Amino acid sequence: MHAIMIVIDGIADRPMKKLEGKTVLEVANIPNLHNIAKNGVLGVFDPLNAPGRRAGSDTAHLSILGYNPYEIYTGRGPIEVAGTGIKLKQGDVSLRCNYCTVDEKLILLNRTANYIREGIDELEKALNENITLSDPDVQFTFRNGADYRCVLHFRGSGISANVSDTDPWKEGVKVLESHSLDGKPESVKTSNLVNEFVLKSYEVLNEHPVNQERRKDGKPPGNLIMPRGAGETPNFEDFYKKWQLKGAVIAGISLIKGIGALVGMDIIDVPGATGYIDSDFMAKGQKAIEILPKYDFVLVHCEGTDEVAHDKMLKEEIETLEKIDTMIGWVYNHLPEDTFLVILSDHAVSTELGKHTGDPTPIMIAGPGVFKDNAKLFNEREARKGMLHRIRGNDIIPILVDYMDKTKKFGA
Amino acid sequence: MHAIMIVIDGIADRPMKKLEGKTVLEVANIPNLHNIAKNGVLGVFDPLNAPGRRAGSDTAHLSILGYNPYEIYTGRGPIEVAGTGIKLKQGDVSLRCNYCTVDEKLILLNRTANYIREGIDELEKALNENITLSDPDVQFTFRNGADYRCVLHFRGSGISANVSDTDPWKEGVKVLESHSLDGKPESVKTSNLVNEFVLKSYEVLNEHPVNQERRKDGKPPGNLIMPRGAGETPNFEDFYKKWQLKGAVIAGISLIKGIGALVGMDIIDVPGATGYIDSDFMAKGQKAIEILPKYDFVLVHCEGTDEVAHDKMLKEEIETLEKIDTMIGWVYNHLPEDTFLVILSDHAVSTELGKHTGDPTPIMIAGPGVFKDNAKLFNEREARKGMLHRIRGNDIIPILVDYMDKTKKFGA
Repeated sequence: MHAIMIVIDGIADRPMKKLEGKTVLEVANIPNLHNIAKNGVLGVFDPLNAPGRRAGSDTAHLSILGYNPYEIYTGRGPIEVAGTGIKLKQGDVSLRCNYCTVDEKLILLNRTANYIREGIDELEKALNENITLSDPDVQFTFRNGADYRCVLHFRGSGISANVSDTDPWKEGVKVLESHSLDGKPESVKTSNLVNEFVLKSYEVLNEHPVNQERRKDGKPPGNLIMPRGAGETPNFEDFYKKWQLKGAVIAGISLIKGIGALVGMDIIDVPGATGYIDSDFMAKGQKAIEILPKYDFVLVHCEGTDEVAHDKMLKEEIETLEKIDTMIGWVYNHLPEDTFLVILSDHAVSTELGKHTGDPTPIMIAGPGVFKDNAKLFNEREARKGMLHRIRGNDIIPILVDYMDKTKKFGA
Repeated sequence: MHAIMIVIDGIADRPMKKLEGKTVLEVANIPNLHNIAKNGVLGVFDPLNAPGRRAGSDTAHLSILGYNPYEIYTGRGPIEVAGTGIKLKQGDVSLRCNYCTVDEKLILLNRTANYIREGIDELEKALNENITLSDPDVQFTFRNGADYRCVLHFRGSGISANVSDTDPWKEGVKVLESHSLDGKPESVKTSNLVNEFVLKSYEVLNEHPVNQERRKDGKPPGNLIMPRGAGETPNFEDFYKKWQLKGAVIAGISLIKGIGALVGMDIIDVPGATGYIDSDFMAKGQKAIEILPKYDFVLVHCEGTDEVAHDKMLKEEIETLEKIDTMIGWVYNHLPEDTFLVILSDHAVSTELGKHTGDPTPIMIAGPGVFKDNAKLFNEREARKGMLHRIRGNDIIPILVDYMDKTKKFGA
């Protein structure tokens, strides 16, 4: 038996004034989601296993995959780094970074170099080729993520993630120097290495041809790397060992790829999967059906809805959801008989507030042996009529593993 | 105030193809259960306190009685032994056994001696009278359970339950020798005693008149005792001390009697209670009403439904449920005013799969002060509309004790 889990990131919401007290799920044209609702069991779940806790997409996904994020989460840095394909080891230190724009006194002028995208491959190459750290015992790797997002990874002896950020989170002030958070030699050394990398990145990037071109075009140069969110390598139990499910992840963003990689799932790249509303959702769904014979469990992550909800772009959120609904309809129509389909929102986002909330979020499961319950629509209000009731994020995989008949009885 | 809890073992199920998406509870003619549903509060519960976990009847009953099985369960052996009336002490080692049929090389020919029943009292007597163990510091007791099922109990110094099974679980191969699972002297000694008992059982049984008679009738002899599932004596807190309820158990099978005995409840024997679908359910219900004045809490266990669900015998399951419904109607009509009636399925069984599942299972409570909620039928789908919502196995007794006004306030 197999299962496909499709995550519509951050689609759960609160009633909105603009929608006369309804939610995006309640007003969008999503016939395929509602059709699956009629044929499946629904409920809501608390992403962080208790009401009122606001989850990030990373902690929510850990929970949905059956891990307790309060016990194992070490920050976003290592997950982002793992999502770029770097194989992390215990003892490594990982940071997320931005390409940004600074003046010659390192005053921050633009936190994202105006969402720099073109030419970043050349900049990545230049940084890795031209920077040498003063400490011969520590190696670094720099990798681009999506657009202005990038990562910095240290491996070597005597380093620590207990170092402060360089991102001041506002423009017009100087980029911060990283410093030790615990006064220990390892973190002092690491903060020095971070600062050294930042200064050397300016030397490499400021006059780089890509940035000279940008200046000519009136665009802010990506002339500094600004790291933050240092984290040690988390110790995530292998997904297969934990649940006896051979798993694959289809996702556009490195955050979700990183979680998949860190729990030992295969990361399946899909051309056109951007992690934004322009993503080729249909290609993701088709890939899930294509690879299903090789996996017990395929996670398909759709990010765009969360991105535009953060930016309060209601129209775009509805349109993106409707595109995802079309893909889900295709998947449901191509689902083999022995396969379960799980649809959920990983966490709630208030599109009015433009941020995550701690609300429970809808889930539905369709497949062999699953009850058709009294919840007939996929939305927040209707899902609470469902037979799953209100469960916890960590309950989802045990329920699915039981449906898939892979659960061992405790007792006789 | 008093309470009667009636357990319909394993009656909760999933929608079945043969029943056009309905369950046994949804198609059976059970007017009495539905009548109580109209007058009570319903809900579902997770037997092992979390979704998707598959419970055995033993772990489920521990949970229903307010004990956390993950903390205290030591296996089925000691429970079966306690269920035969042997009073267990700490340090004892208990095993479940089968009467089986072997040839002279101890090749297993029939795992149950074709469900041997006649003559087993004589065989039990012969084994206890004619076997002496070589170790003078260890005493054994052998007892029959139901039919071919029996138990072996060791008491003495320097013994351990860390020994392997002798049951190969298939016919045509030699009965296994028990061996130590941890290499310690206690388990080495115990495994030797198990093997000694097995060999001596053959000497006693093979030419026993009961077996000579069976051979004459063309039936396989019960000529060897095959032990498995060794367990140490669990440390279950006394039910009365824990809940201030003087309790009694009415059950046909030694598993449930054993749990009752181990938590210090009185075991009430009822003639005709067989633990199968031929059980005299009405006699059990009448006994519960009869003894109620002497007890706060009477557990009535009905096993037949689980047995036939394991064997995928749908028709028999429905018929058995309907018989139990008749008994429950009688009990409800004879229920004193100050008495609560709790009806539940201890765990779910998929009659299609023939095995336990991790689904939540229905519960209802009727009695003074209990809400009549919107759930009007006793089945899986309707129960989930009930005011109890989705609770845990361990929540049931606290709710009942609170209804019975025996709960102390925490706080002021």
